[in-house]
Amino acid sequence: MYQHKHQVRVRYADTDQMGYVYYGNYAAYYETGRVEALRTLGLTYRELEESGVMMPVLENHSKYIAPALYDELLTITTSIKQKPEVRITFEFEIHNESGSLIHTGETKLVFVNMTTKRPCAMPKNMEHLLTPFFGS
Amino acid sequence: MYQHKHQVRVRYADTDQMGYVYYGNYAAYYETGRVEALRTLGLTYRELEESGVMMPVLENHSKYIAPALYDELLTITTSIKQKPEVRITFEFEIHNESGSLIHTGETKLVFVNMTTKRPCAMPKNMEHLLTPFFGS
Amino acid sequence: MYQHKHQVRVRYADTDQMGYVYYGNYAAYYETGRVEALRTLGLTYRELEESGVMMPVLENHSKYIAPALYDELLTITTSIKQKPEVRITFEFEIHNESGSLIHTGETKLVFVNMTTKRPCAMPKNMEHLLTPFFGS
Amino acid sequence: MYQHKHQVRVRYADTDQMGYVYYGNYAAYYETGRVEALRTLGLTYRELEESGVMMPVLENHSKYIAPALYDELLTITTSIKQKPEVRITFEFEIHNESGSLIHTGETKLVFVNMTTKRPCAMPKNMEHLLTPFFGS
Repeated sequence: MYQHKHQVRVRYADTDQMGYVYYGNYAAYYETGRVEALRTLGLTYRELEESGVMMPVLENHSKYIAPALYDELLTITTSIKQKPEVRITFEFEIHNESGSLIHTGETKLVFVNMTTKRPCAMPKNMEHLLTPFFGS
Repeated sequence: MYQHKHQVRVRYADTDQMGYVYYGNYAAYYETGRVEALRTLGLTYRELEESGVMMPVLENHSKYIAPALYDELLTITTSIKQKPEVRITFEFEIHNESGSLIHTGETKLVFVNMTTKRPCAMPKNMEHLLTPFFGS
Repeated sequence: MYQHKHQVRVRYADTDQMGYVYYGNYAAYYETGRVEALRTLGLTYRELEESGVMMPVLENHSKYIAPALYDELLTITTSIKQKPEVRITFEFEIHNESGSLIHTGETKLVFVNMTTKRPCAMPKNMEHLLTPFFGS
Repeated sequence: MYQHKHQVRVRYADTDQMGYVYYGNYAAYYETGRVEALRTLGLTYRELEESGVMMPVLENHSKYIAPALYDELLTITTSIKQKPEVRITFEFEIHNESGSLIHTGETKLVFVNMTTKRPCAMPKNMEHLLTPFFGS
């Protein structure tokens, strides 16, 4: 398993008139979690696209346990629990400032060759970086 | 079952550099589907909040079958398949201009008393409007 | 002068915890005003990009006179007051449901050749459609 | 003058199909600049609202000099150049990773008493923190 923690500050832009983070805005928090998890590993999603591979989302699942509030510093824990092949699944846990688990999520993406627009295997450089986390 | 169709035009604001609608923006499309489904039934979510009941989201699930593209006129089919009690589940199907099913989603919300901040039963006026769709 | 009216319904997604439309979300309302103004004229921005011309924004100015509220049906009046050349300026007035002017805006865009990435003249088909509105 | 620098990473969510940051998303970058400028000074906007004062936006002006691109680490320089009274003006300069000035902005906000919903003077604690930056 590969796991990474990242923090995001809730912006006024993210809230709605209920005074909570709008339910659609967690997807961008997940994105930040994924991207920073990869960056820490030694890879940027920007480079991945520059090398001709993009990662569109296939599925997204969210559970809203308690609201996230304006200006809170949220901790996003991003996990890759299974070695990716053509698809990669990220799992997310979000804790608020007082340490409560307020949200869980799961996003499944697919590696796509940007030229053929067809699914492809995980790029070699990414596989090289991830393999050590998944035993033999 | 209660079902309603509504159309939304994809804005430039909704797209990302992949040239697709960003995966987090479907949540707002679902919102539009829910709100217009209720309005056609004879109830606005605005009135619901004014009467002291809000509906935060508990769960959201999305499947991205094919991308939605800029300026497409999407058709959102919103269904309530089970009679709501303290919770209400909306299901969504999104078809693009050429009639292809490109996306499905499901959102579960809970009725919350805005004063006590605790779950409550579906408001009577809403129950009155929905009951005819769910047999005896 | 060319002028066009279009309506948008304020989504929950557009509001913030002040209970108003977030100040950054008016830009997408302007976008809708521009795009529908062009569509009514007989041209879509999608076609423009497909023909190799894009229109990035150079300047944007907004005055917030009174807040826009959730679920209000806003009327966006989009005006082109001067015949465009390499640049085009759209002016916006937004009225709420009770007819009050709550917002004004102005956006200046530039025609850019997508191949050379350099400014270019307004495309001929667009000029043809707009000329009748600007006398001789 | 009070000046503060803050960095934001461009998210995929912020881009549009032109491959640039969507023009409406700079407003949230400005917000981050303002909020972090105040936090560094010793005040949070959250506390301000909790004390009964909110700061709706009156005017916003943006100049787009060059596009901001996905994953760039932008530096937002936020300046308060005049001592605020009932209104406060923030000026912004945004530089990209290679140090180029790509964007300037200016946002004017007003202090509003949340109970009366009427404009009010800058709160005393904020005035106390800002005064040293504006001579006598």
